[in-house]
Amino acid sequence: MEKKGKVAIIGAGLIGLGWARRCLKSGREVAIWDPKSDRENIEGALSLSSWTLHDSLGDAVEGAVFVQESAPERIELKHQLYADLAPWIGDDVVVASSTSTFMPSDLQKGVNIAGRLLVGHPFNPPDVLPLVEIVPGPATDPDAIAVASNFYASLGQRPIVLHRERPGHLANRLQAAVLREAFDAVASGQASVRDVDIAITSSLGPRWAIQGPFASIHLNGGVGGIAHYLDHLGPAFEALWRDATIPTVDSALRLKLIEAARTLISTENYEAAVNIRNQALLAVLSTAARFDFEDRDRVSEPPSSDRAAHDA
Amino acid sequence: MEKKGKVAIIGAGLIGLGWARRCLKSGREVAIWDPKSDRENIEGALSLSSWTLHDSLGDAVEGAVFVQESAPERIELKHQLYADLAPWIGDDVVVASSTSTFMPSDLQKGVNIAGRLLVGHPFNPPDVLPLVEIVPGPATDPDAIAVASNFYASLGQRPIVLHRERPGHLANRLQAAVLREAFDAVASGQASVRDVDIAITSSLGPRWAIQGPFASIHLNGGVGGIAHYLDHLGPAFEALWRDATIPTVDSALRLKLIEAARTLISTENYEAAVNIRNQALLAVLSTAARFDFEDRDRVSEPPSSDRAAHDA
Repeated sequence: MEKKGKVAIIGAGLIGLGWARRCLKSGREVAIWDPKSDRENIEGALSLSSWTLHDSLGDAVEGAVFVQESAPERIELKHQLYADLAPWIGDDVVVASSTSTFMPSDLQKGVNIAGRLLVGHPFNPPDVLPLVEIVPGPATDPDAIAVASNFYASLGQRPIVLHRERPGHLANRLQAAVLREAFDAVASGQASVRDVDIAITSSLGPRWAIQGPFASIHLNGGVGGIAHYLDHLGPAFEALWRDATIPTVDSALRLKLIEAARTLISTENYEAAVNIRNQALLAVLSTAARFDFEDRDRVSEPPSSDRAAHDA
Repeated sequence: MEKKGKVAIIGAGLIGLGWARRCLKSGREVAIWDPKSDRENIEGALSLSSWTLHDSLGDAVEGAVFVQESAPERIELKHQLYADLAPWIGDDVVVASSTSTFMPSDLQKGVNIAGRLLVGHPFNPPDVLPLVEIVPGPATDPDAIAVASNFYASLGQRPIVLHRERPGHLANRLQAAVLREAFDAVASGQASVRDVDIAITSSLGPRWAIQGPFASIHLNGGVGGIAHYLDHLGPAFEALWRDATIPTVDSALRLKLIEAARTLISTENYEAAVNIRNQALLAVLSTAARFDFEDRDRVSEPPSSDRAAHDA
């Protein structure tokens, strides 16, 4: 069993503070380092008290069981951070980066703790949405993957391990695919911004809140499942893949999107809007979890040797 | 105000019976015609009693206020049906096709009721998911669009009107975009089928159950909204659009998907699995509706001249 030690949070921006909240909620101590953030700002964001803010990076990471780095997306800055924190962490401590733009091989270049470095990419907000994409680089030690997986599962998250590094990891590639078609619907004059959103919230969104795209088509294939689905609808979907076009985001489209987005949701009281969004997400997650569709317990349970022996 | 008249359901397959259930639930009478379906099968699928099954197409459509055609996806068959039912329906009755594969201009070719013919495409299951994509063709009378929109809204659905016909309409294009990336993740060895599904149900699915893709990025852009988002993340997403590849669905990938799908969800007791799925969808829809994100009432309210005058 993993001990519930201190977590070091490097970078206290939107994502770093989300990580801090999730760690605190699951009973972890949190040590924060951010050269630009002040105590008052962090106090406003974190209601629980078991966190410390450090002036020195070494103080923040020393004695931590896990380091989550959510620094600005500048590769030189990240490389410098890994070099600076390396002397202060234990040999078995994993350093995970929240980066959405760099691949683990970028992060590992010239870094002496490369074996314990990987991408641990959350989805905003990390204290609400459970996904963490673990992406090992070529130099990552397999043990580090297991440590990260167990750690995230202990926070109540649902880590998945990606077996190949690709730009955008996985979830943002899936999001980009939908945004391409959504932008293209507006750019081509097919649908309004509002109607594209309604198309999703009235069909695919609820479906994908309870079942992923593969389980969805498997069940929509009838008793023949995904095999029947591929036989009957596969060619139609492949034709749509070929029909897809990349829209040009010019100033006219940009203006259209900005003006329409303002009518979708008011960000005038931004904090309030985010709070309602987070409550809604938690409510949907808990509703979906009532239905045992994906055998969620089995999936989210951290791998453990006892359990494996029992199952075998 | 529209009167609650009889609805003619042409074709009693999966989609046709879903339409029948939605109509019956909202207090409509339903007249069904299907040369291949028998009374026993329909009795099993429909619990409410205010439906009739007809041997003659003319009998089914005569006196109906709306005709929903969900016949097999063969264009000659559909053209024949429109010709056969035309003499029996009133001049103001709209005929909507549930087709997912044909565009309205295909349907209208050589049809003498083309002005009252449009696509009214639901998302499976039509009695659970509220989306209806109304796609007028070049010959569709603008009045027919308003009639269809009011009719679907009266069934508690959320109709959207597409301003251009495109293969797959809109929602299936969005689904195809995600399936392309999902298939590619598996084909490229990036992720397992199960992990692709988890990536969606743990991040994008819950988000899109409460907010569409545009409202999501608007709120994720911070106080600067979608404008800030486009400035900062636009180039990254456009790079992912260019990085997207079309996977080849060969027999190896096919086999991999089929074997993995079987571990995701059991279709051994298919009816039971579908029932749980439908309950889960209804629960998520009702959870999402508790949060007034998209001003759902305003959006789903059918357009009416009284209301417009009041708002002005």
